Amino acid sequence: MEKSVLQQVRYQYKPKLPLVLTNNLAKITLQRGQATTSVNNHNEIKELFPNSYGAPVVNFTEGSGNLKSEGFTVGAILSGGQAPGGHNVIAGLYDALKKASPNNKLFGFLGGPSGLIDNKYLELTDKIIDEYRNTGGFDMIQSGRTKLEKEEDFKTVAANCKNLGVNALVIIGGDDSNTNAAVLGEYFLANNLPIQVIGCPKTIDGDLKNELIETSFGFDTACKTFAELIGNIARDANSAQKYWHFIRLMGRSASHITLECALLTQPNVTLVGEEVEAKKLSLSKIVDIVADSVVKRAANGHNFGLVLIPEGLIEFIPEFNKLINELNNLLSLKAAAFSQIKGSETQIQWLQDELSDKAAQLFGSLPRDIAEQLMLDRDPHGNVRVSAIETEKLLMRLVESRLAELKKEGKFKGSFSPLGHFFGYEGRCAFPSNFDADYCYSLGFNACMLIMAGLSGYISSIKNLNKPAGEWQAVGTPLTAMMNLEVRHGKPKPVIKKALVELEGKPFKALVAKREEWAVETAYIYPGAIQYFGPSEVCDRPSETLRLEQSS
Amino acid sequence: MEKSVLQQVRYQYKPKLPLVLTNNLAKITLQRGQATTSVNNHNEIKELFPNSYGAPVVNFTEGSGNLKSEGFTVGAILSGGQAPGGHNVIAGLYDALKKASPNNKLFGFLGGPSGLIDNKYLELTDKIIDEYRNTGGFDMIQSGRTKLEKEEDFKTVAANCKNLGVNALVIIGGDDSNTNAAVLGEYFLANNLPIQVIGCPKTIDGDLKNELIETSFGFDTACKTFAELIGNIARDANSAQKYWHFIRLMGRSASHITLECALLTQPNVTLVGEEVEAKKLSLSKIVDIVADSVVKRAANGHNFGLVLIPEGLIEFIPEFNKLINELNNLLSLKAAAFSQIKGSETQIQWLQDELSDKAAQLFGSLPRDIAEQLMLDRDPHGNVRVSAIETEKLLMRLVESRLAELKKEGKFKGSFSPLGHFFGYEGRCAFPSNFDADYCYSLGFNACMLIMAGLSGYISSIKNLNKPAGEWQAVGTPLTAMMNLEVRHGKPKPVIKKALVELEGKPFKALVAKREEWAVETAYIYPGAIQYFGPSEVCDRPSETLRLEQSS
Repeated sequence: MEKSVLQQVRYQYKPKLPLVLTNNLAKITLQRGQATTSVNNHNEIKELFPNSYGAPVVNFTEGSGNLKSEGFTVGAILSGGQAPGGHNVIAGLYDALKKASPNNKLFGFLGGPSGLIDNKYLELTDKIIDEYRNTGGFDMIQSGRTKLEKEEDFKTVAANCKNLGVNALVIIGGDDSNTNAAVLGEYFLANNLPIQVIGCPKTIDGDLKNELIETSFGFDTACKTFAELIGNIARDANSAQKYWHFIRLMGRSASHITLECALLTQPNVTLVGEEVEAKKLSLSKIVDIVADSVVKRAANGHNFGLVLIPEGLIEFIPEFNKLINELNNLLSLKAAAFSQIKGSETQIQWLQDELSDKAAQLFGSLPRDIAEQLMLDRDPHGNVRVSAIETEKLLMRLVESRLAELKKEGKFKGSFSPLGHFFGYEGRCAFPSNFDADYCYSLGFNACMLIMAGLSGYISSIKNLNKPAGEWQAVGTPLTAMMNLEVRHGKPKPVIKKALVELEGKPFKALVAKREEWAVETAYIYPGAIQYFGPSEVCDRPSETLRLEQSS
Repeated sequence: MEKSVLQQVRYQYKPKLPLVLTNNLAKITLQRGQATTSVNNHNEIKELFPNSYGAPVVNFTEGSGNLKSEGFTVGAILSGGQAPGGHNVIAGLYDALKKASPNNKLFGFLGGPSGLIDNKYLELTDKIIDEYRNTGGFDMIQSGRTKLEKEEDFKTVAANCKNLGVNALVIIGGDDSNTNAAVLGEYFLANNLPIQVIGCPKTIDGDLKNELIETSFGFDTACKTFAELIGNIARDANSAQKYWHFIRLMGRSASHITLECALLTQPNVTLVGEEVEAKKLSLSKIVDIVADSVVKRAANGHNFGLVLIPEGLIEFIPEFNKLINELNNLLSLKAAAFSQIKGSETQIQWLQDELSDKAAQLFGSLPRDIAEQLMLDRDPHGNVRVSAIETEKLLMRLVESRLAELKKEGKFKGSFSPLGHFFGYEGRCAFPSNFDADYCYSLGFNACMLIMAGLSGYISSIKNLNKPAGEWQAVGTPLTAMMNLEVRHGKPKPVIKKALVELEGKPFKALVAKREEWAVETAYIYPGAIQYFGPSEVCDRPSETLRLEQSS
């Protein structure tokens, strides 16, 4: 297969490791810290994980060495959506295994967790690994969204591992996948099955982080790629001076990506889902916020601007959530009656009559194609496909209407030409930034150390990430220490707590401190494309979110 | 204003020049070549440009020097859409002027050609120029789309130049702007006004090129930026293995961008407008081409893929063009009758009855929202806004319907989940690639040499671009040598011939040689982000189009 020049050159990049992990294995020494508790629901979580609960945080230091080097056959899986750096986690794991002993083996299970169940795998070799070093994507072994949750699946996995001689699994995934890794690890311990389970924190959305995990991998690269595009569009807006760009960004349950991109590019308006929810902002209020910036900028002769919108915004708006619930109920309870009605205009009218007053009012205020989409575009369960809603277009239309009113009242004298964009797939498989390349390689290498220390039910953690890689710390965190109980599908379930944007956190406060100024001024920053070579301040810089969170 | 780290570091980049232009001015020597003729309509063009026609191609060599160094006050304008590198043209021009004599001056006229008419300008200084070196965008002096065509405007321009002491204008723009530069230059010559006019070839679409101009600036950077995104999406497609991505790319009248991006990324299907037109491909045939690739790949278990679509595709489809013309006519002739009809379903039915059979058939085959868009979304002249049509979505729907038919017939057994993207604004204002940074700086520097050689009605040309910059040639090409007559708004008009994709050219042939294989195989290449530092093979590489065109 043909390779781009960049890919060929990136093969040569040597990812940086925490200093301790550059030692020979004979010197790497596990240190146990204090016992941990779950973040909440201590008793319930302890009851669910009797064999894993309470394990200590551990870290590695240089010393006389206490790790085992031989006899490891490890299986790795990639779980969930792509994030830049997944290949480097596997490469780090592979290099650590082989450095300890050439007899250690690494299997990649294919297509995510289903590969473990269906026993589809590939033995990873130098030749394969070398083809994927420092590249984006999950194409080496692919990923999948099957969930490892059922006991019968655990049995199958145990049998498959036994047949292959696999004595440790590394599960590279987000909060759900790591929760399932904890449950699987507990199952193996409870049943005296000699298979260790180690997780690695992946999500480009950035919502898998806590006191013990500073960031999930892929977030940095994805945000830098989106920020490149936002910056280019900002420069275009400031050059042409005639368009308002409404840019929706990936990130459904958390707005970290939008916040990070805002800090990197300084747009006029940044909507943050968590704030919308906390302040119970209505759709109308959100439209006001945007329209207000348009009006103020127009007064200065600036009929152009930039709005960043998180993908999940709609779900954070209380009234919208209510409308969607009512629609889901109505169209399921009265499906037969609805199906008799012909023509979308009549259908919309029928729904208007059936919805509660408040919901009907919101539904009636929506542009027609959005109303039609809510009414007609439904998933296999008959539910509104919220993720398919083009929120940027919804806002563009509503702001346009609001400005038309303001124009009539003499309160807006400018022009308003909006353009919409959505960025998601553009950033999920980019070549990992040096930060993500180093971080991921370290996560994989460290996962191997945790295995060699005989641990299970841990997530590989690398800390002190705001410092140069040499100063990074190699840590292991018990998965149960990050858990609490949440109600899912009506039942309490142990889950790793999702990290949403903290309204009291430094990154959000940095936005708040500046956004009134940015709403009026043209304060855009143009980050440009991710650089892999050149000055360290250009190519090794971590995310603003991380820098701010770790600033004192 | 805050600057990104990349921007601060890029300020330090020293663009490369053709060797001859690195000499002191005292050694740079103009050489005149043979007299030229227009590409067509010799007599007509000669009659329209009696004072400029037939001028020789010129080039600069090292010698005893024959350029004037002092007494220049130059005005620069940016005309039309943004293209990466515009700031470097101005920086090259500025540096050349000031190197020759600190008394020379450069004014930037603001907001494009209208700045020349309205006398809005800025004297450019070290401080201003240094803020914009090697950056994207046209924000230094902005651009505009006003056309300089009317004699009364020429008079105003002459008066404004006289007041400011401007004795040369550099017009940085596309084919239209350079055509107008030629007309303006001829006007000055005919009226003995001492103002020289020099053009510079800008268009990201790449349609301003010919034997004398190897490429227009901005094309390389824009294509590299789009190819980064396409490659990232391709890697995502190959990792998730469940989506077909339909990507529409900027480039309305020529498909150069789509072709270049295809050569850089090797997608499954590449549609080229010029081929569609030459072969009179129907919309149905185009749908066949895409569906055929989907079916073949599905047979190999590959239910994912990548389709590249030029923005202007629809206008190249003969039957679609006919439909649009009929709609424009109908809705203008029978506007009153149409306005009486209520409800879009009834409106569509009414149009179906009024259109010719063939047009009605095509209109009836379109997805409803596209039909509505054609019917309702009209420009101020009442015409269909063809550029607003989301061609990628149109194709996604039509391919989906075709595959549903094939499934019924048992000819398609896979799944098909399409996703659409459009890239345009993402690439127009990127930081120029090293190639565009060097090329633009050289164009601007060379424009100054042409002025100092006393020439007018020329376009700055840099040749031998496939070689390292030191080997580039500094050339001047008479604008009239690139002209022919074309009918515009019913009248013959002298214009620079637009360079469309040549079906016999090497770049298109390179696509043809491989596309049957790419339609079935997964042969994607992942170019990654533009690199400004690092190995020369990564960061100084010109476009594939240029490399192939200049290959022997």
